Amino acid sequence: MKLFRFGAPGQEKPGLCIGHKHYDLSAFGEDYNEAFFETDGLNRLQAFLAEKGAGLSQLPEEGMRFGPPVARPSKIICIGLNYADHARESGATPPQEPILFFKSTTALCGPNDAVVIPRGAEKLDWEVELAVVIGRRASNVSEAEAPDYVAGYVLHNDYSERAFQLERGGQWVKGKSCDTFAPLGPYLVTPEQLGNVDALRLWLKVNGQLMQDGSTAELIFKVPQLIAYVSQFMTLLPGDIISTGTPAGVGLGMKPPRYLKAGDVVELGIKGLGEARQLVQAFQKGGH
Amino acid sequence: MKLFRFGAPGQEKPGLCIGHKHYDLSAFGEDYNEAFFETDGLNRLQAFLAEKGAGLSQLPEEGMRFGPPVARPSKIICIGLNYADHARESGATPPQEPILFFKSTTALCGPNDAVVIPRGAEKLDWEVELAVVIGRRASNVSEAEAPDYVAGYVLHNDYSERAFQLERGGQWVKGKSCDTFAPLGPYLVTPEQLGNVDALRLWLKVNGQLMQDGSTAELIFKVPQLIAYVSQFMTLLPGDIISTGTPAGVGLGMKPPRYLKAGDVVELGIKGLGEARQLVQAFQKGGH
Repeated sequence: MKLFRFGAPGQEKPGLCIGHKHYDLSAFGEDYNEAFFETDGLNRLQAFLAEKGAGLSQLPEEGMRFGPPVARPSKIICIGLNYADHARESGATPPQEPILFFKSTTALCGPNDAVVIPRGAEKLDWEVELAVVIGRRASNVSEAEAPDYVAGYVLHNDYSERAFQLERGGQWVKGKSCDTFAPLGPYLVTPEQLGNVDALRLWLKVNGQLMQDGSTAELIFKVPQLIAYVSQFMTLLPGDIISTGTPAGVGLGMKPPRYLKAGDVVELGIKGLGEARQLVQAFQKGGH
Repeated sequence: MKLFRFGAPGQEKPGLCIGHKHYDLSAFGEDYNEAFFETDGLNRLQAFLAEKGAGLSQLPEEGMRFGPPVARPSKIICIGLNYADHARESGATPPQEPILFFKSTTALCGPNDAVVIPRGAEKLDWEVELAVVIGRRASNVSEAEAPDYVAGYVLHNDYSERAFQLERGGQWVKGKSCDTFAPLGPYLVTPEQLGNVDALRLWLKVNGQLMQDGSTAELIFKVPQLIAYVSQFMTLLPGDIISTGTPAGVGLGMKPPRYLKAGDVVELGIKGLGEARQLVQAFQKGGH
């Protein structure tokens, strides 16, 4: 299945994509949130579709806003330096074990919403990433069990303010958590629909220029390893997001570094998960 | 006001403490969560008490379990090295600006619940801290405005696994987020009831021995500074927790370092916010 959420920010409704058509799933009566995943929502949704699928109303393509395909999760866990080429461009050695950091869930937004440059920011950077949505509560699960804990996959742009992240003392979370720094979607795609997750092309363009062009084949730590690893240190809840890291080609890695400015357009995609487009906007006081 | 939550984990009900008496506030019909704080719940609760206060039923002291006094917030933000003496004992210089890190909200538990040593952990450490509960959505607020954004204060033990935090690659969140690593409470005390928050004694004992004995007067960055600072980097939501850091006396700072083992008893308190007591338990598979 290929799920999405649509409508005004904070008032999104559930939808389902079949082929290239988008359907309104409001009649299902639930949001794609922790409770949905926790109560076997994906299977219940399939049963609902088997019974009522023929009566769903199609949504117009024009003017529809996509929200993040998961309603606010308990946490967004990101994996640092999980592609060897990106570790090199960042001046780091590939890690011995996964590097974890958090993003505030208030950073979540829709895949085509504008990204807002925070007040005082000068080093806004992009990071196309494959993200995993957790389907079941997971604590100390093994790598072999890990695939059973995946609800689906989603496209994520892990926006980062490099000065906040690296020059303002301490931990990365400071440069990862601003509002609009986690555009997610458009689609949550279930594993059986996506197929092999270990050879997906992921790419990102700025103003039409290809900046990142990698493959999940190059991930140092794969999805089952990551789920097993993270679940040693914290309990994963249904709906939680693990963003698996970004390949080479971020602004920080260029010589000289290149950062985003108002008016820039960022486009990105992962094969099978859809595409997203974010206009870069200047900070506006009171804009949130 | 002095609020608490009581009952079985995940099924807590709201309560109110007046003097030394504990009252059941289930009749108010709300939990102390994001929606409560966002909709001016503290004032609505006062109005409710003015009307119905005489009819509240008192709770027995015996056998009552305290939950965390705030239902799951969107995030727990911790401040690192915010007491000069603790920075010194950690071998660090006091920071130029606040160090931020996150704890997973799945780490939350009641103030007298057992703390569980995670699987493979050998360096479980304690940190008594003053935590602030945010009352209103805050983004880019000034230090002068910051006090208006405080719902109240609460006692927190920022449990830390030092090997996970410092020896496992990268960011501190890995050693801060295990289940039971954030016992919170017993009470959320509103600012007008607590009085001056800048001179509160905070202390922690292990097996009866005083290990930490500080005062919030020694905080490098005070509460209004912290709220203003954090709100530059992320939006704070009602119910969010900012834990302000720990004074000297943690196990990591001893020569040789001293860490907790199963059977140890940790007691802690902050003047005006009550006391907590945590028994240290060994890891149990399936028990989290």
